[in-house]
Amino acid sequence: MEINLRPIGFVRGGRTEQINDDWDTITARIDLDTDWLTSEAILGLDGFSHAEVIFQFHRTDPKTLVTTARHPRNNENWPLTGIFAQRGQFRPNRLGMTTCQVLGIDGVSVLVRGLDAIDGTPVLDIKPYMIDFAPRGEVRQPDWARALMSNYWKK
Amino acid sequence: MEINLRPIGFVRGGRTEQINDDWDTITARIDLDTDWLTSEAILGLDGFSHAEVIFQFHRTDPKTLVTTARHPRNNENWPLTGIFAQRGQFRPNRLGMTTCQVLGIDGVSVLVRGLDAIDGTPVLDIKPYMIDFAPRGEVRQPDWARALMSNYWKK
Repeated sequence: MEINLRPIGFVRGGRTEQINDDWDTITARIDLDTDWLTSEAILGLDGFSHAEVIFQFHRTDPKTLVTTARHPRNNENWPLTGIFAQRGQFRPNRLGMTTCQVLGIDGVSVLVRGLDAIDGTPVLDIKPYMIDFAPRGEVRQPDWARALMSNYWKK
Repeated sequence: MEINLRPIGFVRGGRTEQINDDWDTITARIDLDTDWLTSEAILGLDGFSHAEVIFQFHRTDPKTLVTTARHPRNNENWPLTGIFAQRGQFRPNRLGMTTCQVLGIDGVSVLVRGLDAIDGTPVLDIKPYMIDFAPRGEVRQPDWARALMSNYWKK
């Protein structure tokens, strides 16, 4: 079974290389693909402070993907962990998903801050961040997750 | 440009029909596709209380998709809104993304609660919910979003 998707747009601006940390300093645009979409598709998105963006790590070589377990960021101080228990790019389907700030909309562009996707990244979906879609119930994570993220957004 | 993905697994159990509300009563499994994945891929996922699941609304007829704007749930009391400023299923690429509770792992299955995807749904990715991936900065949403969600998770 194969699922065929078409990018709804592309990240423009921001970083040109994947760097691990300090993403909340970065602003960029998501430009809709005007071959099939218009500004109507993002009408009202600026009524939300944040959006969730689903994209593909298109520069990650499919030959390097991990389908089993590895140490997060290959750091052996952190436990051997299944690829679906981490968020890194070397994953089946190479999908990324990040909640970023919506700075505004401008024609067919969404202006965002803190999207950890580089210039040229294909975007597959944008969803408004609704408060009720936050986790329900107490949130728990292993210690390595907090350590790994310590400088990820830092401004 | 086309992006070809392969399901990493399928939702088993839970609801067999898409119903708007009351999803937090629902438990289900995500069974990895054992043609190419093993239990190693989810090792340690039970160290997280929640996971984000990316899936496709496979039963949504592609002919019914909205690429422009509509009233959420076709309710004219709510403003005309771009499809990427709503989270409904009638969207380009038909992707869903939900943060659900991880009840545990069992072999190649992840046991979840509050996943709003029906039995048989193809799953494209599972990511652990990391606290640092929550929205940074103040969260704001239009009034209709709160109204629409008022019974969505209710137990």
